[in-house]
Amino acid sequence: MKIWQKNIDVDSFVESFTVGNDRVMDLQLAAADVLGSLAHTRMLNSINLMTDEDLVVVQQELKNIYKEILAGDFQIEDSVEDVHSQVEMLLTQRIGEAGKKIHSGRSRNDQVLVDLKLYFRSEIQNIIQNTESFFNELIQLSERYKHILIPGYTHLQIAMPSSFGLWFGAYAESLVDDLEMMKAAWKVCNKNPLGSAAGYGSSFPLNRTMTTQLLGFEDLNYNVVYAQMGRGKTERILAQGMSSIAATLAKFAMDVCLYINQNFGFISFPAHLTTGSSIMPHKKNPDVFELIRSRCNKIQALPNEIALMTTNLPSGYHRDLQLLKENLFPAFKSLNECLEIATFMLANISVKDNILDDPKYDYLFSVEVVNNEVLKGVPFREAYRTIGIDIDEGRFKPSKEVNHTHEGSIGNLCNDQIQRMFQQVKATFEFEKVEKALEELVK
Amino acid sequence: MKIWQKNIDVDSFVESFTVGNDRVMDLQLAAADVLGSLAHTRMLNSINLMTDEDLVVVQQELKNIYKEILAGDFQIEDSVEDVHSQVEMLLTQRIGEAGKKIHSGRSRNDQVLVDLKLYFRSEIQNIIQNTESFFNELIQLSERYKHILIPGYTHLQIAMPSSFGLWFGAYAESLVDDLEMMKAAWKVCNKNPLGSAAGYGSSFPLNRTMTTQLLGFEDLNYNVVYAQMGRGKTERILAQGMSSIAATLAKFAMDVCLYINQNFGFISFPAHLTTGSSIMPHKKNPDVFELIRSRCNKIQALPNEIALMTTNLPSGYHRDLQLLKENLFPAFKSLNECLEIATFMLANISVKDNILDDPKYDYLFSVEVVNNEVLKGVPFREAYRTIGIDIDEGRFKPSKEVNHTHEGSIGNLCNDQIQRMFQQVKATFEFEKVEKALEELVK
Amino acid sequence: MKIWQKNIDVDSFVESFTVGNDRVMDLQLAAADVLGSLAHTRMLNSINLMTDEDLVVVQQELKNIYKEILAGDFQIEDSVEDVHSQVEMLLTQRIGEAGKKIHSGRSRNDQVLVDLKLYFRSEIQNIIQNTESFFNELIQLSERYKHILIPGYTHLQIAMPSSFGLWFGAYAESLVDDLEMMKAAWKVCNKNPLGSAAGYGSSFPLNRTMTTQLLGFEDLNYNVVYAQMGRGKTERILAQGMSSIAATLAKFAMDVCLYINQNFGFISFPAHLTTGSSIMPHKKNPDVFELIRSRCNKIQALPNEIALMTTNLPSGYHRDLQLLKENLFPAFKSLNECLEIATFMLANISVKDNILDDPKYDYLFSVEVVNNEVLKGVPFREAYRTIGIDIDEGRFKPSKEVNHTHEGSIGNLCNDQIQRMFQQVKATFEFEKVEKALEELVK
Amino acid sequence: MKIWQKNIDVDSFVESFTVGNDRVMDLQLAAADVLGSLAHTRMLNSINLMTDEDLVVVQQELKNIYKEILAGDFQIEDSVEDVHSQVEMLLTQRIGEAGKKIHSGRSRNDQVLVDLKLYFRSEIQNIIQNTESFFNELIQLSERYKHILIPGYTHLQIAMPSSFGLWFGAYAESLVDDLEMMKAAWKVCNKNPLGSAAGYGSSFPLNRTMTTQLLGFEDLNYNVVYAQMGRGKTERILAQGMSSIAATLAKFAMDVCLYINQNFGFISFPAHLTTGSSIMPHKKNPDVFELIRSRCNKIQALPNEIALMTTNLPSGYHRDLQLLKENLFPAFKSLNECLEIATFMLANISVKDNILDDPKYDYLFSVEVVNNEVLKGVPFREAYRTIGIDIDEGRFKPSKEVNHTHEGSIGNLCNDQIQRMFQQVKATFEFEKVEKALEELVK
Repeated sequence: MKIWQKNIDVDSFVESFTVGNDRVMDLQLAAADVLGSLAHTRMLNSINLMTDEDLVVVQQELKNIYKEILAGDFQIEDSVEDVHSQVEMLLTQRIGEAGKKIHSGRSRNDQVLVDLKLYFRSEIQNIIQNTESFFNELIQLSERYKHILIPGYTHLQIAMPSSFGLWFGAYAESLVDDLEMMKAAWKVCNKNPLGSAAGYGSSFPLNRTMTTQLLGFEDLNYNVVYAQMGRGKTERILAQGMSSIAATLAKFAMDVCLYINQNFGFISFPAHLTTGSSIMPHKKNPDVFELIRSRCNKIQALPNEIALMTTNLPSGYHRDLQLLKENLFPAFKSLNECLEIATFMLANISVKDNILDDPKYDYLFSVEVVNNEVLKGVPFREAYRTIGIDIDEGRFKPSKEVNHTHEGSIGNLCNDQIQRMFQQVKATFEFEKVEKALEELVK
Repeated sequence: MKIWQKNIDVDSFVESFTVGNDRVMDLQLAAADVLGSLAHTRMLNSINLMTDEDLVVVQQELKNIYKEILAGDFQIEDSVEDVHSQVEMLLTQRIGEAGKKIHSGRSRNDQVLVDLKLYFRSEIQNIIQNTESFFNELIQLSERYKHILIPGYTHLQIAMPSSFGLWFGAYAESLVDDLEMMKAAWKVCNKNPLGSAAGYGSSFPLNRTMTTQLLGFEDLNYNVVYAQMGRGKTERILAQGMSSIAATLAKFAMDVCLYINQNFGFISFPAHLTTGSSIMPHKKNPDVFELIRSRCNKIQALPNEIALMTTNLPSGYHRDLQLLKENLFPAFKSLNECLEIATFMLANISVKDNILDDPKYDYLFSVEVVNNEVLKGVPFREAYRTIGIDIDEGRFKPSKEVNHTHEGSIGNLCNDQIQRMFQQVKATFEFEKVEKALEELVK
Repeated sequence: MKIWQKNIDVDSFVESFTVGNDRVMDLQLAAADVLGSLAHTRMLNSINLMTDEDLVVVQQELKNIYKEILAGDFQIEDSVEDVHSQVEMLLTQRIGEAGKKIHSGRSRNDQVLVDLKLYFRSEIQNIIQNTESFFNELIQLSERYKHILIPGYTHLQIAMPSSFGLWFGAYAESLVDDLEMMKAAWKVCNKNPLGSAAGYGSSFPLNRTMTTQLLGFEDLNYNVVYAQMGRGKTERILAQGMSSIAATLAKFAMDVCLYINQNFGFISFPAHLTTGSSIMPHKKNPDVFELIRSRCNKIQALPNEIALMTTNLPSGYHRDLQLLKENLFPAFKSLNECLEIATFMLANISVKDNILDDPKYDYLFSVEVVNNEVLKGVPFREAYRTIGIDIDEGRFKPSKEVNHTHEGSIGNLCNDQIQRMFQQVKATFEFEKVEKALEELVK
Repeated sequence: MKIWQKNIDVDSFVESFTVGNDRVMDLQLAAADVLGSLAHTRMLNSINLMTDEDLVVVQQELKNIYKEILAGDFQIEDSVEDVHSQVEMLLTQRIGEAGKKIHSGRSRNDQVLVDLKLYFRSEIQNIIQNTESFFNELIQLSERYKHILIPGYTHLQIAMPSSFGLWFGAYAESLVDDLEMMKAAWKVCNKNPLGSAAGYGSSFPLNRTMTTQLLGFEDLNYNVVYAQMGRGKTERILAQGMSSIAATLAKFAMDVCLYINQNFGFISFPAHLTTGSSIMPHKKNPDVFELIRSRCNKIQALPNEIALMTTNLPSGYHRDLQLLKENLFPAFKSLNECLEIATFMLANISVKDNILDDPKYDYLFSVEVVNNEVLKGVPFREAYRTIGIDIDEGRFKPSKEVNHTHEGSIGNLCNDQIQRMFQQVKATFEFEKVEKALEELVK
């Protein structure tokens, strides 16, 4: 048996197996854990499970720890199992017995649940901010290059005239729909599970409405069994929201890798942002976009991973759920980095002018020319036949002007409407309400 | 080469490969296709691309076809490729040349896009209705059996007292969060892609705002490239919404299969709703719930399947997208059937009384007893030690009464709040707006 | 409650829900079911659970039914639940009481298990045959066009000279590795579960070794609990094998769609095998390859779907498993069609000559030129510097000849070795052993 | 733009984004990288691209570095991009210019490819060893407890008598089939990609057959384009092999969590290997098995994750592939730990005797009793009817003896056959051939 061969003490093997990477993951929950305790202890005091004197010292010291966390001065010691124990231990070291009382009327289960929801809320806000920067960059580029035409493809075959205005704007609008998914995740996260104890409630007369207000939650996870059932489900829904943004980014990265390819050659980036070769001067490897694509496809796999790890588990807590941290937490960082670097790269993009001068793109305009004849009164069939003959006989020399006027077309991008939709969805998150409640709590 | 061995004509082999199951799938789009054409032709008339005379006959005949579809009298002939061609052919057979004009200013691409969105909207509404019935049944059962205690498990170990009230209510509340996901899908579906043509817009002066209003859409897919990009994405988001409900159902089915197992024995169903054996009288196979679980886990796999089929496709239409119909369309039927039969089964469930009389459940109450002592003023550590000794020495005979009072606990289920939340989310769909617009369109 | 509104009888609703599509799926198991019964009854006779007289009539009539199945004259009636009942019913109608005895010492569970394994074996053989045709076509094309160079890309950037010989040959070799996965699936399928009854064995003195030999299985699923556990697992492993071939096909289809794009323009197909447009003469939509890609990506999603439907189910049969038929059975047909049509399309492919004459591909040869200098004795750094200067100053006019000689390179494709590897793996399946056993059984 | 706000230098942001976790991951490739260079340089010498003098010093120093790696004395410095650069830098620091020559005739691409294959081979061997330990433990337990009966379930309903012998043995046999999948992965990994350069071969007269033999590979990845295409595919196939073992472990863990639950109560573990509660003495949380289940379900999600990250990438290298290391490398450690700790836990399992004495299990024997009557000559229908009446009238008191004799049944487990199959598959890996080649290379 290998364990003994390795001369590792059994219990420490079991402990290390069960703790896993929890200490590393938990560090990200530290701020949320203190916020939860600030609210919980004020509630305990209100129902006479904590004295006024204890409350004062506990609140004061929790706020100190909160500041240390924000300053990066907080660590989980190797001898301590998780973030909750670390906070409690610090507190007790500093203020004595009163520190131990913060756990009354709570179980580790609902403490983790509320920590996760608070943490997820703040991560959602980060993602939305980075998404907005990326969105704004796309809209700017769409406006700046709205007059530059590119070929539009269907079946990856040259089909109809398109434009950089349409291309950049399309990805901006895609983010609007992605926001709806993030919105659903936000709604699910913005409900208070605190007070559900081990998933079956408590015989203490907890005031869950009070902690809901203190923590700025919009509503409660009422049913305590459901509050616990939210573990895993919340993660899956949040991962689905993130995967929606990731899918937009990955598709955009695919387009970029295609358009920077020399057979297309529509766009380029400065040499220091690509990888080149001194004897292959045309080679500009778009590593950043390949890695955005890869990371985002990995994020797209996340909801399924969570589903596989939670499916067919009966109701009630299972230790399986602990491992979901390792899937989701690094994905926040990864998605934010992708959004940031994509925004940065776009700020440095160059687009090629006069792409459509190449005669291989002439046929892009055949439908345009037919339509224009129709608008002048020529019957469709006749126009179609005439153009067809022109093409056959090599006489087709289209004017390469495009005069599209309807909503969302080359000549009428409606980027203002797309911005309006983005801001409308964003406004419904009401981040400021949450921020205000939390400021109140830690001040 | 096998194709020739089979004596199948090459072109028909290629045709049958490319058409696939499209005819069967498309039948479900028939009503939506006519609605789209009703709106499109009114718009064509408004921009002088269809005469008043043509409009009158086209509208009249489209409404006739619409009625035939609702009556089940519509079929796609074997010689016809898809639903759009079938409608156009019928129309032209009946009203002549005018029938061919309904395709002006439209491409097959945006016609399919708008059909799908209209169809998805109606399927979402079906699902929400069936979800509501299931929700109501769960709430009723939660109320009816709120006084009957069951063991609550953590780590699948007997842990704390729970109740049928909590158990049924938890799944009801789970559906509230699922609705948020369906809401996101609804928002994404409720935008008008019509007028995006082949994904690059049209040189005709289309009035997309007009068709948006006529079809009761909340907004437009403005950018025409994005409108096309919505194909695949819309399906994935809708599948994610459905998978959320499916996950709730599957988990519930897992609990049912466990609780009906003879080692638990908490619930039962009438013999004719389970599968039994005459010489194994205790055997009541919960086939219906096993199949609910299985079907719902299949639905949970759907978003990933769609992701795999659409990932890394550059922007612009690809024929790949056609196949998504085969994934998604049968899932609507399957999920609705699961919701219906689950509701029906629940209406026939029997729950066992006095489960906790079994002494193996005594330890459920140890935390209760400690907490009660604490509430009477006994210091926690002392209470804990005393109960521990009682247990050790076999003297622990707990009162099996539970007095939980806080929000969402056994004694205070807050089902009214859960119902309030359900209705709040449901109201935001504003189905009646859509219904009204469509009624107007076909009347 | 909707069920009653629809005026559907409850029991038929439950029945239709539980039977699902089983009748349609089961039709494909009919031949396998008869084979299983032929072997089982001979074994029953050998342990005196069936008389010699009964055996004779049973065998004779089963062989008749087998012929009817092969001739397409077998159907599962609406009043009959599944294929097993249909066969038994037919038999009893024709030969009386003896027909009922074929079920002795067997459960529906192990009957389905053995049917599935027999059916899977025959489907694996079909897939291997179609894979071999596709493989042969690729090798032929690789040989035929081995002298035609194309650009090789890394990061989708023009990088090094490649050739059609390499490109076609690469996909051929990919199939060799795919065969290893199919081999694993074959090994798992080629073990006999018959005799495991309901998953816990039988008190009858069955001779499982005898049925193993009669059915041409290589070995037994010995442990009866494991025999049952193989359900779901076998499907998943087979799906993984199929997904490996599918991944090769999907990647090839992606390359085809790229190379047929006008910006690349390396290959083309006759007009009647693509979809074009009279006024866009250059448009040749590769619908067949888009659908191959899409179907194969769907198959790639299959193992995960099966995992989601079976994960966390405790040991023992669950009705959930029935639904796996609906995932897997259509995938056989789909993969075979993809292989057949890909082979057919390849037989009609045209490749472009002189692609590398285009000056944009000049830089492909820079590494070649440096290496050639090195081989002539020029120090690498010097060669590299000289070429770099030539390029900078526009003097780089490379000879576009490639002289690669090592194993697997442009000038030494080693297609014979790749064929040798393919045949080696294929030989290990030993299909002929199985065929011989089955011929013996039905003769 | 956030990047500047953070005061991070742009290039370092891009660099850190592109390098990612590569340094950490690459550390695991160090030994493989040196092995590859040992073989490559001997081959370079044989084709006169490295002098005899250079070869001697290079080989000597590479072997020194190899020893340092095995001793844990090797690190990748922060200023160095990856393991390949680190080895080359060390070498050049120590032996001067000759160190730089190890890269001749090689690209970073095929260097990584061969490193991965060598590393995967060694990880497969580790996994097989740990699997064998787990297998042996299961077989031992199966033999030790073969006489202890437990209920067998179908539909999770009490169905037929089973035994611990069957239960443990079933999972042992499951590992035999898992080995077939690992075998496929091994075959795919055991082919030499070295010499494929950047995926398009080299103009140097490399002797790829020679490096194949030196590195103990069974065969070559001949076609150089396919050699590169193996990246991503090899990872996916290996992940599928691992997921097969993981599925077996996860299912076993599910059974354990169920059987340790107090409603079943079939097995237990010593208190120090479970998590308990002083006032809930019956609570023994099976955390280790919950985490095995969770980790293994995560591994089951891995093949799909890889598929999503590689699907629809055209042929040729893409930077996306780098990220696969982060998915796969930690999974090796995780799976090995699961196998080790499961083996350890099993060595400490206690099983309950006399489980079937509980009258709720009486009906398990009804089929047995009927069969026994049949074997005595009573017609089946009569036996069935008599027992049915006995049960109805409460007179059914079955003898709880089980007399199953056929292959794989309670009384005839055939564990020797299962061991034979395990060893047969294992033998085909021929690990010793590989070991011998590598020993030769480093000695």
